[in-house]
Amino acid sequence: MTQKKKDSALHETPGVSLPKSVSAKSAERIKNLRKKKVNPQELVEQIIKGNKTALSRAITLVESLQIKHQDDVNAIIEGCLPYANKSIRIGITGVPGVGKSTFIEAFGNYLISLGKKVAVLAVDPSSSVSHGSILGDKTRMEELVKQENAFIRPTPSGDSLGGVAQKTRESIILCEAAGFDTILIETVGVGQSETMVHSMTDFFLLLKLAGAGDELQGIKRGIMEMADAIVINKSDGENKKPAEQAKSEFRKALHLYPETESGWKPKVKLASALHQQGIEEIWEMIVTYEKMVKENQFFQHKRQEQNKFWLLQTINDRLKANFYQQEEIKIQLKQQLKAIENNETTPFVAANFLLNLAKDL
Amino acid sequence: MTQKKKDSALHETPGVSLPKSVSAKSAERIKNLRKKKVNPQELVEQIIKGNKTALSRAITLVESLQIKHQDDVNAIIEGCLPYANKSIRIGITGVPGVGKSTFIEAFGNYLISLGKKVAVLAVDPSSSVSHGSILGDKTRMEELVKQENAFIRPTPSGDSLGGVAQKTRESIILCEAAGFDTILIETVGVGQSETMVHSMTDFFLLLKLAGAGDELQGIKRGIMEMADAIVINKSDGENKKPAEQAKSEFRKALHLYPETESGWKPKVKLASALHQQGIEEIWEMIVTYEKMVKENQFFQHKRQEQNKFWLLQTINDRLKANFYQQEEIKIQLKQQLKAIENNETTPFVAANFLLNLAKDL
Repeated sequence: MTQKKKDSALHETPGVSLPKSVSAKSAERIKNLRKKKVNPQELVEQIIKGNKTALSRAITLVESLQIKHQDDVNAIIEGCLPYANKSIRIGITGVPGVGKSTFIEAFGNYLISLGKKVAVLAVDPSSSVSHGSILGDKTRMEELVKQENAFIRPTPSGDSLGGVAQKTRESIILCEAAGFDTILIETVGVGQSETMVHSMTDFFLLLKLAGAGDELQGIKRGIMEMADAIVINKSDGENKKPAEQAKSEFRKALHLYPETESGWKPKVKLASALHQQGIEEIWEMIVTYEKMVKENQFFQHKRQEQNKFWLLQTINDRLKANFYQQEEIKIQLKQQLKAIENNETTPFVAANFLLNLAKDL
Repeated sequence: MTQKKKDSALHETPGVSLPKSVSAKSAERIKNLRKKKVNPQELVEQIIKGNKTALSRAITLVESLQIKHQDDVNAIIEGCLPYANKSIRIGITGVPGVGKSTFIEAFGNYLISLGKKVAVLAVDPSSSVSHGSILGDKTRMEELVKQENAFIRPTPSGDSLGGVAQKTRESIILCEAAGFDTILIETVGVGQSETMVHSMTDFFLLLKLAGAGDELQGIKRGIMEMADAIVINKSDGENKKPAEQAKSEFRKALHLYPETESGWKPKVKLASALHQQGIEEIWEMIVTYEKMVKENQFFQHKRQEQNKFWLLQTINDRLKANFYQQEEIKIQLKQQLKAIENNETTPFVAANFLLNLAKDL
């Protein structure tokens, strides 16, 4: 929020000339600052050099809901595009309490020790209500956040999952253009957000806990079958035995699943993010996966399919927004939903009514 | 198709008066016949009486793609609505070869022996290409098809899954109004159709085979987690032992899944539809389920949610159809998809381009 406020305070006010006392050099500097603000090309150049401040600023523009920024955003993304796509995108999901932040802290630091550049993004559509239940507090990744080769970006706020997802997708491109080669995208596995994250990542990792407690926390059905790997976290101390047991059970369960399109057999791993255990093995698994799906062309194929999906998804989201945001439709939709509850109409009769209504608006 | 042809041949020709030689009684009969054709009220009355010919005819209208039938269809559905909803709707899915037809034949005949009235519908969006891979050949259910209390309707053809699904939803209402209390909806578990069927049924049953063969036939990931029960079919002879083994494995796997919203714990059952084994137990399970979810109100809640989902789904489908069916959009979309493949644009830039284009059309 503070960044957005800063933006608006920095808006160029036309017609105000500089006082004479300002030196030519300062004037040039100020002019450049202002130029930077509205010059997408310069921002792109800075991003490509790996300038994290420029990256941050560009993402702020991407996240802006203001239509006047849209042209700049498009120009920035187009400028970054030729430098993007050279990364592995890893989705990380799990219910609250499973230890996502601790895992990303440990995993990210390990990757940096290997010479990787790590960007951490988040999709959490609930955050506008909960004020960022994930990544909201950067101090939860206190080591990672200090690393030169790490970039952590809290959840963008947004009015819809589609909107948030779009911003995250565009942020991925900017991060990649800035040289980040490993993109971690965190999400809470309780809504539709993990399906969104699944559709923008190369590898999808589900964090679980041993024991029944996890099941009760409401992870959505279907997520398990989307996972390329299940990591049983907090596998330490007294938890170790139940975790081993859970690993064996999950393995058997995964074995019963239909084959993946990639030919990859989903794995089950143990980890204790708190004690930095199992982290290396998880990364090696992902490297093996990447090698395999790049060889069999699935990696490239999946990214293309994801992009096509997102093209259609974006159009569909916009068409829906245009329809449902009409005041009269809002009112009448409520009444039709009521009529459905009372079994006075069918979904199709009600839909026809609303669609005909919209024609006359 | 023959029915549709008959319909059009029977259209009332205005301005032709009856010859004098026709008796008043015959004239009345002919008038009624013609009236029947265009009188939704009369069709509704016949449906409510349980007249299968009238039901068939009404479904043919529902399946008609002709806009001129739309008002009649709406009137028929509105007329049937107060008599509908008193049934259990059971979705049955499984890959080709798992024995769906044989299962439905055995299951349906068993239900009829209990005094039930059984309607069998199908959702198979591939059928317009494959000319009905399921239910296309009624002889595959040769006993069931002869039963007075059975109504079997082959797959409607349609241009889109949304369209086919809508027709099936409306057909359910008509069947219920005609007194069918058990609606079986068959689908092939290889595309998105089973998600559609899941969203229009009370109980979702997945047919599987023991052994790895089934996995390779490409059932979609995520289906297993939607199932209220997995039935391992062809559990007879030499297959019996592997089936028992599979049952135990699936049971363990289901145990690891997140809890269902209904509170129901999905079950695994063995059956040999060919030898009419396990059929009774499956029905008893569904009865137990129905009792439980009616008591805890989930049954009613789910149907309401399904209806609301279908209202929105129908609107969204129509909005999309209106957009994508524009000739210029078709052409430009193809080009934008190409540009995405070549990594020359992003999904969002491409979407903006197409949405702006549509504004000017």
